[in-house]
Amino acid sequence: MKLTEEQRAEFDEQGFLFLPDQFSEKEVSVLRAEADEIFKTKRKEIWYESSGAPRTAFAAHTYNEAFGILGAHPRLIEPVSQLFDEQLYMHQFKVNAKAPFDGEVWQWHQDYGVWSRNDGMPTPRAMNISIFLDEVMPVNGPLMFIPKSHKHGVFEAGHDLETTSYPLWTLDKETITVLAENGGIVAPTGKPGSVLMFHGNLVHASPPNISPYPRKIVYLTLCAVSNHITKFNRDEWIAHRDFTPIEPVADDALLEYARKYSVAA
Amino acid sequence: MKLTEEQRAEFDEQGFLFLPDQFSEKEVSVLRAEADEIFKTKRKEIWYESSGAPRTAFAAHTYNEAFGILGAHPRLIEPVSQLFDEQLYMHQFKVNAKAPFDGEVWQWHQDYGVWSRNDGMPTPRAMNISIFLDEVMPVNGPLMFIPKSHKHGVFEAGHDLETTSYPLWTLDKETITVLAENGGIVAPTGKPGSVLMFHGNLVHASPPNISPYPRKIVYLTLCAVSNHITKFNRDEWIAHRDFTPIEPVADDALLEYARKYSVAA
Repeated sequence: MKLTEEQRAEFDEQGFLFLPDQFSEKEVSVLRAEADEIFKTKRKEIWYESSGAPRTAFAAHTYNEAFGILGAHPRLIEPVSQLFDEQLYMHQFKVNAKAPFDGEVWQWHQDYGVWSRNDGMPTPRAMNISIFLDEVMPVNGPLMFIPKSHKHGVFEAGHDLETTSYPLWTLDKETITVLAENGGIVAPTGKPGSVLMFHGNLVHASPPNISPYPRKIVYLTLCAVSNHITKFNRDEWIAHRDFTPIEPVADDALLEYARKYSVAA
Repeated sequence: MKLTEEQRAEFDEQGFLFLPDQFSEKEVSVLRAEADEIFKTKRKEIWYESSGAPRTAFAAHTYNEAFGILGAHPRLIEPVSQLFDEQLYMHQFKVNAKAPFDGEVWQWHQDYGVWSRNDGMPTPRAMNISIFLDEVMPVNGPLMFIPKSHKHGVFEAGHDLETTSYPLWTLDKETITVLAENGGIVAPTGKPGSVLMFHGNLVHASPPNISPYPRKIVYLTLCAVSNHITKFNRDEWIAHRDFTPIEPVADDALLEYARKYSVAA
């Protein structure tokens, strides 16, 4: 999938692009079923909320074949590669559960601030591209973005080790207030199969999910190969050290997987 | 203000009515300024979040003249009196701050479950009618309703003394899940001056406010005089014991107040 000039201009201006209807219900249902299976297992790559509900499954592309395909899917790899005009490697891969009732907050932060401080990533030539596995609604803890907040570089941040189980470099209230006065706050919502890509410096957060609806989103953090990380403070399955360029699979690879295993068809 | 037959039918079916543009910006700005003043004071009727931010100012109609007027405003009293076909008294009055960044969750509950269990209110002939002092948006912790959930009487509930500073009888996950399968979940949003009235048995909640935007709402809990409470477990300023019928003030009383004190004009 190639972005149009208009889409590139919108990304540059707003700091994100929302692309509905990128994956079919058949493709998404395969991934949703696999995610539910993964969250039933116990392994070191899976982190939990304080309630015990699953929060995040890291590196699922390394131990699950369907997510392995997704991690090399041309509809996710190509637009990011186009923007950076370079091949990409996988810096991080995660399935965020945002479980019904128990999914906790992600406080306001910039992803590149985390990659820079924790992992020594040289520049913001990396970004998240995400795919909704469930419908994202105003009521089930949607991602919130501050449009245009990617234009100011990396803000100072405090290392929040207490709010949730996941350590995060978070921004202060004054910074968020000023940014929101300029850019507002938006919460893109949409059907399963929607894709959301956002600049590594875009300020974002997500509130708890108090609804009975699941809100699973897969995040691929794709980094330009020349921009690979230089510090290895975090576990390899959180901040990968394999900088091999990703070779995209065929566009119908998820459907082929579904046919092969007769799952979720 | 009188409800139309269509509005009465909608209320009966859905369990709530959302009425935008009921109070002008001039009227609301008076109340907003008074609320901000109240939240700066220290008094027993004001409760706080764990962060120290204000959560709720109870009984503001008894110690603030503008809120005294609002507590007898015909645009709030008349539609509820019409539905119950009886005069009303004030069971509870509160300004909920839902402060920027710090406003905490209100878990899923039914108001009448609280009034019945705590205060011995005989029947659900009481309801909340609320007025937005700030814009309510998807991103600043809007009220969430489960439409049609008022049709099943009072559900079993557990007394939640831990989640926040305010004790609340809350419903279990299974009940919420089944109700939401039938009725969905809606989060009415709108400008300051909007009015929202909802049945005492309508199941509702609100998520934390992680945005930089305030989200103040005033709630009048109006009870049919013949349905007054019978137990006096809670402080008088939380569950009032003055069952005198409310005499509505003039429709322009808030504007008159603003003229008199030259505030917020």
